[in-house]
Amino acid sequence: MIFEDDNMFNYKLVIVVRSDVDMTPGKLAVQASHASVSCALESKSKKGKYFKRWLKEGQKKVLVKCADIHEMESLRNKAEREGLTTKMVSDAGLTEVERGTKTCLGIGPGPDKKVDNVTGHLSLY
Amino acid sequence: MIFEDDNMFNYKLVIVVRSDVDMTPGKLAVQASHASVSCALESKSKKGKYFKRWLKEGQKKVLVKCADIHEMESLRNKAEREGLTTKMVSDAGLTEVERGTKTCLGIGPGPDKKVDNVTGHLSLY
Repeated sequence: MIFEDDNMFNYKLVIVVRSDVDMTPGKLAVQASHASVSCALESKSKKGKYFKRWLKEGQKKVLVKCADIHEMESLRNKAEREGLTTKMVSDAGLTEVERGTKTCLGIGPGPDKKVDNVTGHLSLY
Repeated sequence: MIFEDDNMFNYKLVIVVRSDVDMTPGKLAVQASHASVSCALESKSKKGKYFKRWLKEGQKKVLVKCADIHEMESLRNKAEREGLTTKMVSDAGLTEVERGTKTCLGIGPGPDKKVDNVTGHLSLY
């Protein structure tokens, strides 16, 4: 069982969602889950310190929104310059959106400050 | 980048969401992501074969709904009897729901058939 504690968040994973792609809540949840699992696994093997601390703190995740694919790509580039894990999710297009549509971007997990440098200006989803 | 392929899904992770807990789409996405990451990590260490195949196939995830905590607990017990990974997510209660509220349950990843024995009768979210 996962139980988050209020006062110890210092690491987070941010999931950036495109505002210009219509998705049902269920679809959104699946896309965000893809991004989260992919970021968690990659950081586990390549950013072990970040990963361990984040997991120990309760694997905080925050959903934010960006305008479109151009903003999402620019955020990914910025995150990579910060040395953060990034994973972009392409949809299989079996259901709601066109095949291959990039729906969201996972950034982190990483220290709050580093992540905020990239996504701090974005609105919560 | 993740790209699912249409015709090769044989393994899946199912996320069961309580219908009686009101959540915004953003909240739901975060809770489902918690369940997904926790199931992925536990299966990676304890059900390596299932995990590897699931990941190779594009980490299929499906969201379904159950009525309430009682049904969710009964699904967890059934999944455990099937030998599947299960993870129940409790919310920190910082925002929308009461602290400690169990919001969703991850089951798997596991072979479609095994998972369907537990969740096949539930409606898609």
